[in-house]
Amino acid sequence: MSDFDYDLFVIGGGSGGVRAARIAATHGAKVGIAEEFRYGGTCVIRGCVPKKLFVYASKFSEEFEDAEGFGWSVGERQFSWEKLVAAKDQEITRLEGIYRRNLERTNVEPHDSRAVLEGPNTVRLLATGQTFTAKYILVAVGASPNVDDDLIGGEHVITSNEAFNLADLPQKVVVVGGGYIAVEFAGIFNGLGVDTTLMYRGDEILRGFDMDLRTAVRDEMEKKGIRVVLGDTFTEIAKKADGTLSGKTRKGATLEADQIMHAIGRKPHTVGLGLEQAGVEMDAIGAIKVDASSKSSVPSVYAVGDVTNRANLTPVAIREGHAFADTIFGNKPWTVNHSLIATAVFSQPELGTVGLTQEEALKVTSNVDIYKSTFRPMKHTLSGRDEKMLMKIIVDADTDKVLGVHIMGPDAGELAQVLGITLEMGATKADFDRTIAVHPTAAEELVTMREPTERIRG
Amino acid sequence: MSDFDYDLFVIGGGSGGVRAARIAATHGAKVGIAEEFRYGGTCVIRGCVPKKLFVYASKFSEEFEDAEGFGWSVGERQFSWEKLVAAKDQEITRLEGIYRRNLERTNVEPHDSRAVLEGPNTVRLLATGQTFTAKYILVAVGASPNVDDDLIGGEHVITSNEAFNLADLPQKVVVVGGGYIAVEFAGIFNGLGVDTTLMYRGDEILRGFDMDLRTAVRDEMEKKGIRVVLGDTFTEIAKKADGTLSGKTRKGATLEADQIMHAIGRKPHTVGLGLEQAGVEMDAIGAIKVDASSKSSVPSVYAVGDVTNRANLTPVAIREGHAFADTIFGNKPWTVNHSLIATAVFSQPELGTVGLTQEEALKVTSNVDIYKSTFRPMKHTLSGRDEKMLMKIIVDADTDKVLGVHIMGPDAGELAQVLGITLEMGATKADFDRTIAVHPTAAEELVTMREPTERIRG
Repeated sequence: MSDFDYDLFVIGGGSGGVRAARIAATHGAKVGIAEEFRYGGTCVIRGCVPKKLFVYASKFSEEFEDAEGFGWSVGERQFSWEKLVAAKDQEITRLEGIYRRNLERTNVEPHDSRAVLEGPNTVRLLATGQTFTAKYILVAVGASPNVDDDLIGGEHVITSNEAFNLADLPQKVVVVGGGYIAVEFAGIFNGLGVDTTLMYRGDEILRGFDMDLRTAVRDEMEKKGIRVVLGDTFTEIAKKADGTLSGKTRKGATLEADQIMHAIGRKPHTVGLGLEQAGVEMDAIGAIKVDASSKSSVPSVYAVGDVTNRANLTPVAIREGHAFADTIFGNKPWTVNHSLIATAVFSQPELGTVGLTQEEALKVTSNVDIYKSTFRPMKHTLSGRDEKMLMKIIVDADTDKVLGVHIMGPDAGELAQVLGITLEMGATKADFDRTIAVHPTAAEELVTMREPTERIRG
Repeated sequence: MSDFDYDLFVIGGGSGGVRAARIAATHGAKVGIAEEFRYGGTCVIRGCVPKKLFVYASKFSEEFEDAEGFGWSVGERQFSWEKLVAAKDQEITRLEGIYRRNLERTNVEPHDSRAVLEGPNTVRLLATGQTFTAKYILVAVGASPNVDDDLIGGEHVITSNEAFNLADLPQKVVVVGGGYIAVEFAGIFNGLGVDTTLMYRGDEILRGFDMDLRTAVRDEMEKKGIRVVLGDTFTEIAKKADGTLSGKTRKGATLEADQIMHAIGRKPHTVGLGLEQAGVEMDAIGAIKVDASSKSSVPSVYAVGDVTNRANLTPVAIREGHAFADTIFGNKPWTVNHSLIATAVFSQPELGTVGLTQEEALKVTSNVDIYKSTFRPMKHTLSGRDEKMLMKIIVDADTDKVLGVHIMGPDAGELAQVLGITLEMGATKADFDRTIAVHPTAAEELVTMREPTERIRG
């Protein structure tokens, strides 16, 4: 045992922090962890998990409609937002309990308090004033939703944090933003019967994704009844006497809504954390600067997850935490490769993507073959729903290597996960072609696209 | 142009025959094709396509139930078998039209007749009595459901052919058989509200699949209300005065039902085809014996698809037909590799599988690591449905090579398709492990199983 109270003190009980704490403890370290809110972090408490549960809930409305094409007639259906929120809360509480028990089972000492740094090896719990010393401090406090400081009446706006726990489902909502959170919530609200507008100041939603995917998913969202307003944003929001909101936009439009939700990015949750005092360097938006081993500018302070603003995804945070603990306490040094990360967007329809977009591919190589297929998912031949599925494979024409795969449609996220393995292995188009189809599936399209739909040269 | 009427005459307008005809014609051959029933073959007309449409239809009943856990209350629902059959028929007719137009577009001459061989280079159309000569004849007549000749009252039994077009949905059904067709139809009937029994003479359903998958899917089917009777089969079936059926089993039980469906295997559709006269050799069950290039014992006669009883799957027949046409008419010889074929079973829950079962793996290597995970799909945390998902990875412990992956649960078939690429590439467990998870998906379980659940040595 060292002279410190702990070998490791973790600030933040989210995915990355908890994984690091447990693995470090398994390697024999004495570990403390502090969480100011609820164990599980953004993902479990107000991120991926409740989001996906809401997506499931919101998709039933289409299921009821689709059933008719298959011979079903479905009577009156009603939706209770209150019941959904209660069910979601119960599930989150269950998951939080699992997180806490897993910590305790590995003898990690949990402290239910916000903790701040007092120096390179000291943390203080705000709840009790206690201080602890630790040989290593891991900062894993995550990020929180951005607010628009220039917006007049910004206090009337909610973020995803509040959206998960609204007392009532709004009848009319405007979601502001073009990233995956905005897009996912627009789909959720719309599926639950809310009159939904998605407003984004940029030219097209989902910046950073392949352009074909971006336009295709916007098309489908619009077909489902979401009003998508591009190139505009609110400048002023006022609350009316009846409690509803009226927003004025930069272009001079007025939009009325019961709720306006901002999903305009997230920022590292580092304000007031004592990082400056401890000498930990941050970037312009407050993200902790770290090296490949997640070490900050202070050798005893590490950081993982969204607070480092690398790839802000739960599985990445978990891996960073795991690698940190193995490296420092397990004598098994390794680092996370952030270069090839498959992701899903639980928009409606869903997106799954891995590797380079067409735009990115053309930056790294000059000869690119595009294989693109747009088709109606089999289910919708009978449901009659006018919804397309899109699959796009981007191939280096010189090497035959698959550079990226982009999918819109049912189970796109599931497909992206396994496609991640193939790209990780350096798959060529010939590897795809050699694989015999599984029929009837949607995924068989991936192995049966024979001729490029576009050949880009030079 | 040769001295023959055709360069190629294809008997059978199913998946394999149509692909071969079109590709051969594209390579410049003069091609005729004869189909006695409807273009599209078993897959389109009375196989994979209508089957999967029925599976979709039958799953809505659970959707309605599952919705309640997400805050929905769903009123009275009714199902019209008549509407489903009509919708299915309309879709099949649409697909059949596409098949026919694709043939005509490539200048293949269709003959709507049963055709039989009169010699190594001659076919005769039964509808007209016309005979044609052809340099090559491709037999692609598929297979048809087996009947049990020893069964007393066997005339009261239906097969999948009739099941797709029953005038009324039975209230009570017994499906006899343990293969994928029996299992899929049991799920369809059960989901549509039919009192369903699955009876199979063997010890466990789905012979040939991994044993963990076999027992797991039977468990889930039983949980959904299907009565599974193993180790027994009917010896005698009688029709009662009210039109319902009463069946006596080998073990002395009596089962009553409105319909009894046999799905006890399929046999090549070669009876009366003139193969013996032409000198084409067949095996004991009537399958045409072919070499790797699909050539029969008669050099001018080839055969592809189920009539050869190799791997009786649509994509395999298509590939065999394609390879045949490329080889003979396109100067691009290639053969189909039948050794690694991913498949799906559209049971409820669905199965997806690729590579070796545990039993098979232990025959080819002595040290095997098993990674097995059983979990509740996320959707069912709120639906409350007691349904498990199973993922099993079989790894050669000496080489780290993934030998097989077996999945039961939502989208298992879709996952199997992409997993097929990874196994085709020779994936190792390390390739899986290196891949970052996509969260929250079910498939992430495939890349996050760290420790073997079983190590089999020697």
